[in-house]
Amino acid sequence: MTKQRLRVIPLGGAGEVGRNMWVVEYGEDIVILDCGVMFPEAEMLGVDLVLPDITYLRENLHKVRGIVLTHGHEDHIGSLPYVLPELGFPPVYATPLTAGLVSHKLKEHRLLEQTKIHRFEAGDELRVGIFKIETFHVAHSIPDTVGLAINTPAGIAVYLTDWKFDHTPVDKRPTDIAAITALGQRNPLVLMTDCVRVESSGSTPSERVVGDSLDSIFATAPGRIIVATFASNISRVQQVIDSAEAYGRRLMLAGRSMENNFRIALELGYLRIQPTTLVRGSEAATLPDDQVAVMCTGSQGEPMAALARMANRDFPHLRVKQGDTVVVSASPIPGNEVSVSRVINNLFRIGADVIYGSEAKVHVSGHAAQEELKMLLAMLRPQNVIPFHGDYRHMVLYRKLALGMNMGYTMDNVFVIENGSVMEFGQNFAKLVNKVPVNYIYVDGTTVGDVSQIVVRDRQLLSRDGVMIVVVTIDRHSGELVGGPDVLSRGFVQVRDADTLIDSTRNVVRRILQKTNDQTEVDAAFVIRKIKDAVGDHLFEQTRRRPVVLPIVTEV
Amino acid sequence: MTKQRLRVIPLGGAGEVGRNMWVVEYGEDIVILDCGVMFPEAEMLGVDLVLPDITYLRENLHKVRGIVLTHGHEDHIGSLPYVLPELGFPPVYATPLTAGLVSHKLKEHRLLEQTKIHRFEAGDELRVGIFKIETFHVAHSIPDTVGLAINTPAGIAVYLTDWKFDHTPVDKRPTDIAAITALGQRNPLVLMTDCVRVESSGSTPSERVVGDSLDSIFATAPGRIIVATFASNISRVQQVIDSAEAYGRRLMLAGRSMENNFRIALELGYLRIQPTTLVRGSEAATLPDDQVAVMCTGSQGEPMAALARMANRDFPHLRVKQGDTVVVSASPIPGNEVSVSRVINNLFRIGADVIYGSEAKVHVSGHAAQEELKMLLAMLRPQNVIPFHGDYRHMVLYRKLALGMNMGYTMDNVFVIENGSVMEFGQNFAKLVNKVPVNYIYVDGTTVGDVSQIVVRDRQLLSRDGVMIVVVTIDRHSGELVGGPDVLSRGFVQVRDADTLIDSTRNVVRRILQKTNDQTEVDAAFVIRKIKDAVGDHLFEQTRRRPVVLPIVTEV
Repeated sequence: MTKQRLRVIPLGGAGEVGRNMWVVEYGEDIVILDCGVMFPEAEMLGVDLVLPDITYLRENLHKVRGIVLTHGHEDHIGSLPYVLPELGFPPVYATPLTAGLVSHKLKEHRLLEQTKIHRFEAGDELRVGIFKIETFHVAHSIPDTVGLAINTPAGIAVYLTDWKFDHTPVDKRPTDIAAITALGQRNPLVLMTDCVRVESSGSTPSERVVGDSLDSIFATAPGRIIVATFASNISRVQQVIDSAEAYGRRLMLAGRSMENNFRIALELGYLRIQPTTLVRGSEAATLPDDQVAVMCTGSQGEPMAALARMANRDFPHLRVKQGDTVVVSASPIPGNEVSVSRVINNLFRIGADVIYGSEAKVHVSGHAAQEELKMLLAMLRPQNVIPFHGDYRHMVLYRKLALGMNMGYTMDNVFVIENGSVMEFGQNFAKLVNKVPVNYIYVDGTTVGDVSQIVVRDRQLLSRDGVMIVVVTIDRHSGELVGGPDVLSRGFVQVRDADTLIDSTRNVVRRILQKTNDQTEVDAAFVIRKIKDAVGDHLFEQTRRRPVVLPIVTEV
Repeated sequence: MTKQRLRVIPLGGAGEVGRNMWVVEYGEDIVILDCGVMFPEAEMLGVDLVLPDITYLRENLHKVRGIVLTHGHEDHIGSLPYVLPELGFPPVYATPLTAGLVSHKLKEHRLLEQTKIHRFEAGDELRVGIFKIETFHVAHSIPDTVGLAINTPAGIAVYLTDWKFDHTPVDKRPTDIAAITALGQRNPLVLMTDCVRVESSGSTPSERVVGDSLDSIFATAPGRIIVATFASNISRVQQVIDSAEAYGRRLMLAGRSMENNFRIALELGYLRIQPTTLVRGSEAATLPDDQVAVMCTGSQGEPMAALARMANRDFPHLRVKQGDTVVVSASPIPGNEVSVSRVINNLFRIGADVIYGSEAKVHVSGHAAQEELKMLLAMLRPQNVIPFHGDYRHMVLYRKLALGMNMGYTMDNVFVIENGSVMEFGQNFAKLVNKVPVNYIYVDGTTVGDVSQIVVRDRQLLSRDGVMIVVVTIDRHSGELVGGPDVLSRGFVQVRDADTLIDSTRNVVRRILQKTNDQTEVDAAFVIRKIKDAVGDHLFEQTRRRPVVLPIVTEV
């Protein structure tokens, strides 16, 4: 790398929502910004989590000086348990709430003792390798979120992810506009910014709006009130506490992550609650309905989370019933629309009143909309901008927005790039110079990486038309059929109703073996191939479906 | 059934969007209203279509007098090719455009000759068995849509599905308010009405709004304009024609269903186009970009439809390129959000400008919103109401809306019911009297019904963690292992990286066979069961995953 040039590489977060992870490099020093996971897309069948690809970091391990986290959401901290051991446990820098959530996570993975976590407060200055990193508070849907200004010999890189200009946030700490405008005086070299809400005109409403809606629900609901939200949305949790206390209801928590996050936030002083407000499920069951409120997980329709289980009569001490009011205080993450809608339907079926959707104003986003994105540019006036934390379309629309501002932004200083793009910035220099590998790293069950794109593709094939297994035993010398052909299937057709199809398939196999038999030498691989092709064609002809055909040839 | 009672049964459409089909029965006569399909939900893996369950009709075949169709959308006509032969080809009643679309569909299935299609115009009166059926025009996103008033000795049933009060529709035929208010004077017994947009306040905007947006896009787009919409949305197609002609562009059609529907609508006089406007792909390729517009399928992100293929450089004569403007003139149907968003991202990646989403006003719904739903009740004043064509939540919200109108509606005359509910109505009588079976009937490939819930469940299991096949050959007398154990997997782990796991699994199988071997008699079923359990447990222990385990035991 040429001297006096700052290198910036998204390993996750560019062209996708989630899995945020950035490399900032100068000379012999790398600082990593965030370390998130992505939740798998629908066609990544059976995959639990998707991690960033850290090949580049492994190859430059000697340069890694630390990981700085901006806030405690999974898409910014979730990869730590997988990445930390791989990188030899570099120091982690985090604000107190983020550090609390990270500690809990690492403890569960038995990695806490090996990890050095440096706590800092917004406003503190960090020294990570040669980098002097200024931190400043930003408003988001979790407290203790920060923006970062990374000072390097080439210039200042500003990293501002997951933020909005909320002038009336619940924790009374708005985005630090003074810090941002002051940075704007120092001619920052590059800004990396969240752009996921660029499709929305105007400004994102304040979190305060949700408090008002909750109050009016708590003032009128006849029975219990059950509020589902993200466990990490501590401000939302605080607003539910406030409404419960204002309207004389005790509060029960439901869902493991809700209980964990609540405990961590409470211990660290990020929640205010009267000592008598909280109630256990067993006790809540003895109280009059109009004195009970519940805060639970499951706002994304997850079938194993508290809300869906309450709706399915599968949650201890709490079954949703007629007269209950359920508030879905979250928007469906793209891909979850159908499962959220299913849970809402089931709740209505039970007889609950369900309050949801944008017209109900029981949720606001934690991300900046168009006018806020423009305001940030006007305040900060960075020489270069990389929008991220959005789909490709969001990044393109962000560029359009910036170019429309008459601030000198052009295609040459607003960069729409994808993960793995190596960007270099310096005096009058801003360029994509290289690409590093960035594959999806899948976590399925307890293991990382042994589920590859091939495995996922196989699952897709299996999910479409199932599998048909053809078993034959042949004499290893003569090639004669001595057992089978037997046919076995899963997810293809109902075998007991498909006698004709099964019989004709067996005949197809017999015919192949007769033909193969004529050859001078028997080759199991050849037989397998022949069966696979012939049975596949036969089944497609008969059913217009293409199950995975697996021939099993045993030689005896 | 008691005399003087009208029986109404939804076989599809109650508690779901799509697959609309209703039975109206009086004494010895049944008329079927609509005959639609549903597009499968995400977890109905590999299923192409979902049909209504017509068990009840099969059992009452002698009563079936005919099928009356309200309009030509798939969710109202798509089951005809499967249902007509089952019911012995009862006569089908349809308006000209609907009849044209149905004829095309039946021709493809080689069923047209056997089918008697009676064409009628809105305003005509039909005689179907003992039923006198009045028909009246309603505005919707396809022309020639009608509402039905079924006169029976017990009273009038009004069936009004897929409608809105559009006062400025493109075909200049607004909903026939005079007919509806006149019906309101005759004290209708029951109204069945669409409620899918009950979550939206106000009124659904007129289709005219889209024309204005299209005009401003056509006035300014520098290159080609590609508009993706539903092929059946003939009004939308007309507006694209109008804009193309107004701004001097030739129009190319892309996608099989777009071409078919266009041709049918044109032949029947439902489209106005100048003879020189239409252009073939090969010719369009020779024209200047700013003289070309394209109308195509694929607005739902379907990977095999024209839009996705154009974006993937897999469509003859047309590849989307930088400078093109793509208009996505449709909303994603719930469940399609991710695939639509993927196509939009890809189009941006290529460099096209993409116009989409509600703020762009390039799509409006064909269904009534809250104020329209209320207006219908005020005009028609039915004694009883059954909302349908919506999820369960929509039906509950509709009831809330009706109960809030102070028109005498209560829980006893607004019915939230699900498919298969047999409702009876008469003089001061309105009751759910029975339930008939309504399963999902799946179409996969060319066959109906051989893909059951079990097959789909197997596909779900396979899609999660794949399949592991364990093959052993044992001596049928001694039970000794003479071949294997071999292990084969698909969609589970990458076998070449999982030697240890494969080895340990084989050892587990060997151990079982040794134990089994000690028994006096060898029972293959028992061996299979043992292998299945032990291997399943072993794999879960090692990987926290549960592939489908299929032991194959060959005895020689």
